[in-house]
Amino acid sequence: MTLLAGVELGGTKCVCISGTEPDDIRAMVELPTTTPDETLAAIRAVLGQWDHEALGIASFGPLDLDPSSPRYGRIVHTPKPGWNQAFLADLAGGKPFALDTDTNGAAIAEGLWGGAQGLSSWAYVTIGTGIGVGSIVAGKPVRGLGHSEAGHMRIPRGRGDSFPGICPYHGDCVEGLASGPAIAARAGMSGRDIPADHPVWPQAADALAALCHNLMLTTLPQRILIGGGVAAGQPQLFPLLRARLAESIADYGGVLRLAGPLSAYVAPPALGKKAGPLGALALAARAIA
Amino acid sequence: MTLLAGVELGGTKCVCISGTEPDDIRAMVELPTTTPDETLAAIRAVLGQWDHEALGIASFGPLDLDPSSPRYGRIVHTPKPGWNQAFLADLAGGKPFALDTDTNGAAIAEGLWGGAQGLSSWAYVTIGTGIGVGSIVAGKPVRGLGHSEAGHMRIPRGRGDSFPGICPYHGDCVEGLASGPAIAARAGMSGRDIPADHPVWPQAADALAALCHNLMLTTLPQRILIGGGVAAGQPQLFPLLRARLAESIADYGGVLRLAGPLSAYVAPPALGKKAGPLGALALAARAIA
Repeated sequence: MTLLAGVELGGTKCVCISGTEPDDIRAMVELPTTTPDETLAAIRAVLGQWDHEALGIASFGPLDLDPSSPRYGRIVHTPKPGWNQAFLADLAGGKPFALDTDTNGAAIAEGLWGGAQGLSSWAYVTIGTGIGVGSIVAGKPVRGLGHSEAGHMRIPRGRGDSFPGICPYHGDCVEGLASGPAIAARAGMSGRDIPADHPVWPQAADALAALCHNLMLTTLPQRILIGGGVAAGQPQLFPLLRARLAESIADYGGVLRLAGPLSAYVAPPALGKKAGPLGALALAARAIA
Repeated sequence: MTLLAGVELGGTKCVCISGTEPDDIRAMVELPTTTPDETLAAIRAVLGQWDHEALGIASFGPLDLDPSSPRYGRIVHTPKPGWNQAFLADLAGGKPFALDTDTNGAAIAEGLWGGAQGLSSWAYVTIGTGIGVGSIVAGKPVRGLGHSEAGHMRIPRGRGDSFPGICPYHGDCVEGLASGPAIAARAGMSGRDIPADHPVWPQAADALAALCHNLMLTTLPQRILIGGGVAAGQPQLFPLLRARLAESIADYGGVLRLAGPLSAYVAPPALGKKAGPLGALALAARAIA
């Protein structure tokens, strides 16, 4: 087995991981995300102790992933202070590497080892501080005008929902209506204090069902895996979301038959909370596949 | 040059085309679309006179395009009387062929010969009786849970718009809000009688801008070409749509810089009204590429 290394770079912490697959993790090291100089040096020090053959980097974004761009391998247009133009690609130190968004990384990991094995097209949605969508079409992350940012799609409000949304760019896009901070702002309390029968959950489910509806008709996922802190902590979201999705799609074009039971079609990720660091490891595996 | 043939199968008429490329069309024959038996026999009679090496079929849908499905090559779930389960694939008579939706065909033609040459990801939107979206990612039509039906995405209403929408499945999806019949229903008159400064055009532009916003963040087109009867006849739609799209996307993640000038990014198809039959011819070219 080839020894791989991964770096999951998040807004508040990063995780360095070494191993060959989910059942063979040799090391995991967590570091705080501070300034690029400090954080990238700390990551380099960890990687320097490992004997990996390839590196995967799964990072917050937006990222420039166009090999023909002068900014290739950099974080671009991030509102995170200091990180604009941070260069990630040289963490590989000349070894084979792959760089992608954290959500595309998690999606790839689910395809290799988790809940999307054997599929050609699927989506990984994470609901946390923001809403990220990793989109795989024909086995590869969708590329073109940058990378997937489908969490910022425009969707209708649910019936009677007048919450203005909190996305600084779009107000009431999916992220603005149903991310962790949006749900907390709706309820006027911290997410962990909101009871499972609070009316904020059906409102969030409305927005997430519209997101799934739109994905089903555009990137055409054969499964939609929904992870992240909010989804993991609020299992009541899944049945609410599935019921609203079935109503919304109205079996147009027979997609519900194609999708199969929604209880399997819209599901938590099989890799659970490890999908993030395993995403980085999966990118490393793809770099030498 | 290889002689190709194409069949554009539409809801009211079909066009058989023979040639090698847009500047070398050898024949075009138009037939009415009646019953499958009658129409497919008439198409077979036309094709039987031609000496083509490959056939492309660009058809209304939904289509089953999954080669592993028992319904592969058939029209499925269409509301058009008589056409459910109509088998199209055997029009090829054993020659190499490709079958796809009319909008994916037109998108492929724009990539080969028109306004999307040199791109890897693009979209072709047609606004007519319905709203169809052909989506190309990494040079190929997106596949997965069926084929693109992005015209049925859920989007927000424009400010103050209370039109309920006319989509029999979704009410106020993009097609329900901005297709030709939706615009006519809004205005209470036939589309060709609506003046260019009628308030219905900004309302349609709102819906189309939301469609473009969502495509830009999901299938990530490097260009969006908008054709079909409504778009071709109402050039004032383009500046309205571009202005609303710029406002809606709010340059999230720098996508407006990536997209370049919106006057080129959102544009009419280069092949104009011939994009339909040329789509079928382009599919034939791809079948032997």
